[in-house]
Amino acid sequence: MSDKRFYELQAPLTVRAAALAAGAALVHGDDTLMLCDVAALETAAPDEIAFVRSARHLKGLHSLSAGLCLCTEDVKDPLIALGVQAVAVCPRPDEAFNTLALLLVQPKRASFTEYAISPHARLGKNVQIGAGVCIGPDAQIGDGTVIGPYAVIGPGCVLGKNCIIGANAVVGFTVMGDRVDIRPGAVLGEPGLGVFADENGIVASAHFGSVYLGDEVRIGANSTVDRAVFGQTQIGARSKLDNLVQVSHNVQIGEDCVLASFCGIAGSSVLGNDVMMGGRAGIADHITIGTGARIAAAAAVMKNIPDGEVWGGHPARPLRRYMREQIALRDLATKKGVS
Amino acid sequence: MSDKRFYELQAPLTVRAAALAAGAALVHGDDTLMLCDVAALETAAPDEIAFVRSARHLKGLHSLSAGLCLCTEDVKDPLIALGVQAVAVCPRPDEAFNTLALLLVQPKRASFTEYAISPHARLGKNVQIGAGVCIGPDAQIGDGTVIGPYAVIGPGCVLGKNCIIGANAVVGFTVMGDRVDIRPGAVLGEPGLGVFADENGIVASAHFGSVYLGDEVRIGANSTVDRAVFGQTQIGARSKLDNLVQVSHNVQIGEDCVLASFCGIAGSSVLGNDVMMGGRAGIADHITIGTGARIAAAAAVMKNIPDGEVWGGHPARPLRRYMREQIALRDLATKKGVS
Amino acid sequence: MSDKRFYELQAPLTVRAAALAAGAALVHGDDTLMLCDVAALETAAPDEIAFVRSARHLKGLHSLSAGLCLCTEDVKDPLIALGVQAVAVCPRPDEAFNTLALLLVQPKRASFTEYAISPHARLGKNVQIGAGVCIGPDAQIGDGTVIGPYAVIGPGCVLGKNCIIGANAVVGFTVMGDRVDIRPGAVLGEPGLGVFADENGIVASAHFGSVYLGDEVRIGANSTVDRAVFGQTQIGARSKLDNLVQVSHNVQIGEDCVLASFCGIAGSSVLGNDVMMGGRAGIADHITIGTGARIAAAAAVMKNIPDGEVWGGHPARPLRRYMREQIALRDLATKKGVS
Repeated sequence: MSDKRFYELQAPLTVRAAALAAGAALVHGDDTLMLCDVAALETAAPDEIAFVRSARHLKGLHSLSAGLCLCTEDVKDPLIALGVQAVAVCPRPDEAFNTLALLLVQPKRASFTEYAISPHARLGKNVQIGAGVCIGPDAQIGDGTVIGPYAVIGPGCVLGKNCIIGANAVVGFTVMGDRVDIRPGAVLGEPGLGVFADENGIVASAHFGSVYLGDEVRIGANSTVDRAVFGQTQIGARSKLDNLVQVSHNVQIGEDCVLASFCGIAGSSVLGNDVMMGGRAGIADHITIGTGARIAAAAAVMKNIPDGEVWGGHPARPLRRYMREQIALRDLATKKGVS
Repeated sequence: MSDKRFYELQAPLTVRAAALAAGAALVHGDDTLMLCDVAALETAAPDEIAFVRSARHLKGLHSLSAGLCLCTEDVKDPLIALGVQAVAVCPRPDEAFNTLALLLVQPKRASFTEYAISPHARLGKNVQIGAGVCIGPDAQIGDGTVIGPYAVIGPGCVLGKNCIIGANAVVGFTVMGDRVDIRPGAVLGEPGLGVFADENGIVASAHFGSVYLGDEVRIGANSTVDRAVFGQTQIGARSKLDNLVQVSHNVQIGEDCVLASFCGIAGSSVLGNDVMMGGRAGIADHITIGTGARIAAAAAVMKNIPDGEVWGGHPARPLRRYMREQIALRDLATKKGVS
Repeated sequence: MSDKRFYELQAPLTVRAAALAAGAALVHGDDTLMLCDVAALETAAPDEIAFVRSARHLKGLHSLSAGLCLCTEDVKDPLIALGVQAVAVCPRPDEAFNTLALLLVQPKRASFTEYAISPHARLGKNVQIGAGVCIGPDAQIGDGTVIGPYAVIGPGCVLGKNCIIGANAVVGFTVMGDRVDIRPGAVLGEPGLGVFADENGIVASAHFGSVYLGDEVRIGANSTVDRAVFGQTQIGARSKLDNLVQVSHNVQIGEDCVLASFCGIAGSSVLGNDVMMGGRAGIADHITIGTGARIAAAAAVMKNIPDGEVWGGHPARPLRRYMREQIALRDLATKKGVS
């Protein structure tokens, strides 16, 4: 279900019309069922459309209730067995979904051509608005929040109390708690870089999610936090991000985490609470980092890290092991006497 | 030849005056020849000035027609043999060129002190211009293009149809096709970081080129694409760049490439079509990456990669080899029983 | 001593009141002594408050004259021996200091709600101010300086002559020399990411320092330079930073250094003159890099580098050694015949 603060439903479609629009063949289900929204397959309701790229993505799922799921031929039977209401088959479900989804759901946008601060924004008490600030329709700004010059707050955004938004920051599709600190130049809520190939080449995939920041989160200067494809990219209370950090779509960061400069977390990875990442540490997509884990500077994490462990290196492994290996390598090169 | 949309020729100089201004000794050629522009040595015409740092840069060249080339003593004979019209010798050709070039060619600048949108900009139909947008003289904005608040479009820039320019983006010295998507905070067309040393220390070298983006290119939030020293930095149609990516001067990126966050490509490197780069992958300068190559996240590429190969590691090598080496290293450290 | 261009002293406190406000037990000194400012322990004067995290930080100190130092129980005796006027003990000196310091010293801020250019700013001759530029109270702009549209110059900043400030750059707490070149989107003077834990979780620590840039320094697009905790983050004359570079709090960069894209220098590290860093090279905190050192692209520097040496790798070591090790590793994997 897309967040109505940020997305606008268009006219609903029947399953029949949807399959037609997607160029997909309906192979199961009642073609008069009405569809009005989009969602990730796992959470999609009977009036929502979803898609799945391959059978591999069904692992661990026990029942589904999506209204319509787009898939390739080989995935249709498992989807029917899992309870999806209607199934339509096509060669490129991601492309078909992208086309179809934008018929049902459109992000709210403000072009800020006629006003800077929307008359439909709601501002709390003692809000300080710097020169030129843009605030979109239905945005809510909590009491005591200070917004620096030329910051842009998109439609529907919710800022808590006593937040600070730095100059030239761009905040869209975002709900944040109290005392959140966004430094200058940070950009929140952009679509992540999801791509697929259609017959003409590479296409960027549409995003239908948002960003959530807990109380006292800090986002450093020129850092970027992308919105989720569906649901929320989340950063838990009191987590602090340094400058030039990238948080990709669907990432979940726990509370009290600290990420130094140039840390990057690829799509859908999950960090527990109290995780510390040294500068330039990167985490691949769909990785889980346990509570209290510490990741050394410049580490490239390609595997899950258990709670409380300390990892480093490229690719990352337990830091002690990495250190031992570096010593062994030095000894090896010395022994060989290569000069 | 500098692009007249972005650069303004000053009064032309004779070879004699040019050599004098550069503090260089004319060792060959007609000193009354007129010079009016600058170019890279390989492409310089008889009315253009070029320079060369060392004999090494002449490799592979068969004939040259530059009007005047600045060089060190040891390079003069090969230059004459290659057909350069006039040759002048000095100890630091890069410094001499920098001084001389700025006498002949100046970038057009808009200080936006008196207007935000130049009366000499040409706007298409249904263009949406956000609050405070600046557009320089002679810029062209295609039909249906949407420019977010506080974006700055420099003099002479050409934006195609239905482009999206994010809030606070800065676009200069850039020509782009249709449906290009520039996310907030991106900066296009800055001079790259070229430096040389004069007697006082480090100096940044002047740039006389531009940026070209094909149709449907996407540049992520806070990413930067530098303009070329001469000619164009190019990004081919449909290539998608994530947030916080750096593309240096003179880089050539093919079509349908995908570069994840923190990817960096150093000066003059060339990527074929369909190249995929994982997050934080970096490519050194003057490297060639073949069509369809895939580069793993966090790779540091120091060598050319052939078509279709998959490389990773630091420094990058074929990914399978890198994996084998990591296993061998782990076994070595285990065997040694270092704890 | 905090720089009065950027910080405002509040009402002074007695040692007694200060210890009370900090929740610390006064264990040494005259409780009527007046305190009015904050400083790093090494430089704190008798009317200034400092703190120390552990005894380890006293190494190498021979005498101190701070008015009041907050510390844990085990550090009190060494502090008294070193000559600190008054000592107060508490379990978390960093937290206590943070609370206390903000009672004595507050950064000057401009919210730019009522004007864009402060009537109390001082502008030199032939200054060019782009559309929407904000300049805070008591800022000084030197003759001939050009400020791009929507740049924000904070209170008290000093810009020399003939500087260029790019569009959308944000400059605070900064003093710069002449002919400094700040490219678009750069952010200078933000507090660095210092954190400590209080009983509720992670808290960001307050900063009381500034940034100094020498003549002809160049800061690339979207790069970030944080202000010091105390004193100055410094970048020496003619040093050139590429796009997307991060310089953390308290860093000292010498003259004529060149830092390529994505270089990052963690807190308090020191670079001599003439240091060259390839792209994506990172330096850990509290590291010293000797004059003329060269650091290869993608290096992760965890140790001091002597003058003139060339290092690379992850973690960085002398580049020749790194190369030898990579060869040894390749040979090892080949010999083992793992395929």
